[in-house]
Amino acid sequence: MTFKEQFREYIDIVNAKLDELLPEKDNPQGNVYKAMRYSLLAGGKRIRPVLTIAATKILGGCDDAALLFGCALEMIHTYSLIHDDLPAMDNDDLRRGRPTCHIEFDEATAILAGDALLNKAFEITSAAASGLPAENALAAVKAIAALSDASGAEGMIGGQIVDLESEGKEVDEETVRYMYKLKTGCLLSAPARMAAAISKKEDSDEAKRLIEYTDAIGLAFQIKDDILDIEGDTAKLGKAIGRDEKEDKRSLARVKGIDYCKNLLSELTDKAISLAESFGEKGDFLKELAIFLLERDY
Amino acid sequence: MTFKEQFREYIDIVNAKLDELLPEKDNPQGNVYKAMRYSLLAGGKRIRPVLTIAATKILGGCDDAALLFGCALEMIHTYSLIHDDLPAMDNDDLRRGRPTCHIEFDEATAILAGDALLNKAFEITSAAASGLPAENALAAVKAIAALSDASGAEGMIGGQIVDLESEGKEVDEETVRYMYKLKTGCLLSAPARMAAAISKKEDSDEAKRLIEYTDAIGLAFQIKDDILDIEGDTAKLGKAIGRDEKEDKRSLARVKGIDYCKNLLSELTDKAISLAESFGEKGDFLKELAIFLLERDY
Repeated sequence: MTFKEQFREYIDIVNAKLDELLPEKDNPQGNVYKAMRYSLLAGGKRIRPVLTIAATKILGGCDDAALLFGCALEMIHTYSLIHDDLPAMDNDDLRRGRPTCHIEFDEATAILAGDALLNKAFEITSAAASGLPAENALAAVKAIAALSDASGAEGMIGGQIVDLESEGKEVDEETVRYMYKLKTGCLLSAPARMAAAISKKEDSDEAKRLIEYTDAIGLAFQIKDDILDIEGDTAKLGKAIGRDEKEDKRSLARVKGIDYCKNLLSELTDKAISLAESFGEKGDFLKELAIFLLERDY
Repeated sequence: MTFKEQFREYIDIVNAKLDELLPEKDNPQGNVYKAMRYSLLAGGKRIRPVLTIAATKILGGCDDAALLFGCALEMIHTYSLIHDDLPAMDNDDLRRGRPTCHIEFDEATAILAGDALLNKAFEITSAAASGLPAENALAAVKAIAALSDASGAEGMIGGQIVDLESEGKEVDEETVRYMYKLKTGCLLSAPARMAAAISKKEDSDEAKRLIEYTDAIGLAFQIKDDILDIEGDTAKLGKAIGRDEKEDKRSLARVKGIDYCKNLLSELTDKAISLAESFGEKGDFLKELAIFLLERDY
């Protein structure tokens, strides 16, 4: 199977599982499910769940657990986009080529749909863990801890606060990198941390290298986003470009220039490739994924 | 120790633990911690954590676990208030006698502080569970499942959606009761469900009676709130009265009249008292608590 075929297969598995985990409901609160599904099933690259599956395969953990935790992570990523798009936050109308959640529904529904997706991530993982033998429940709860740490005030939410508070201010490269680490990096390294917990290999050298790999592609991912915001194509991206300048965001491209960013992106990708290669053939998918993320135009 | 002294002691323990669980942070995202602490440490009756402690004592479970899960539940309750007060939701300026979170800070910070409090509830419980022996980790993860179920789209969030969508519409008593069960009842019966999980007594007759007790006081609590919204005192309540009428909310008092509500409140309190009495002396605190909740003026 080629990388593209494998990637497509993983994405299809993830999409089917997300659809199953969040069915439509014909009850009085059915509208919040509609809004949750609208945003969750709107496509997207599914990088985070795919990474969770791939990292768990390398460590030899359970495929089903990886898929479930990957889907929980995707729910958290999606809620963060819904809230980030709100008028009080980035005030965006377009996401993945469609109206954002609060435009399609309304602001109150979008706030609650975001809350409900975040909550759902912990519902599905704790419910699954509750049915496991005690030893595996302990591994699962460690993965829940990795998930919640990545998405909290010392993780993604913290990054959003720093992002908001940096708008229009002079900030240095260190602060931008700190913000990127939290805002984007934490949810992209969560797959390696969750995979390590699921596979009961937290302290292994392999787990450490996987975390290093996800740290590298996490920063690379955000830098690529910055570059696409300047040089990308709205039709391909499914969202407006030039937002960083319009909202006076402190992006690395704006602080250090686009050439600096392109060099750094290339270095980070090389680092990720060499870490993936350290796993031999088992690392082929992660190697190709790093190249795909470098070359993507959406 | 009198009931009042015991209640005060529990509240003090809860307040100290909340302060410890959510310290101020001197980092770039420090502002989100300020907002979280502003709302979380603003006082409040702490009914949910106190109930968790009292229910766990009756079932013979671990005090420390009860305190931790009670505090996690209080974080979720607080986040729900922060989001509920937002302009796009109930648009309230006053809460617990102080400006609401989005008035004191700003809307974006209030949204993120709410998100971070919800997330924090799962951070602290999964972190604690990760350090336990496997058997106890399984019990803890069942308590996490009870917590997340109570706060999700089939629980509190679902109730908020039904509440919002019922505004200005003709709804029957059944719909109002369904909304109350989700919006208020679920977070008030979570203490009994979490206590049962912590104590590894989910299927016991005692746990079932405790859940019945919390179901009764959950509905009683919301009905008392309805009555206070009509007959209460803003200074004592720390929030405006007459909000249900102003926002055209479907409260039971508006659908069935205040006398009907007073009778139902009295019946529910009697039911709760008789369930508390079924535990003998061990149930004294819960009995007095039901009476306190009936008589409260805030």
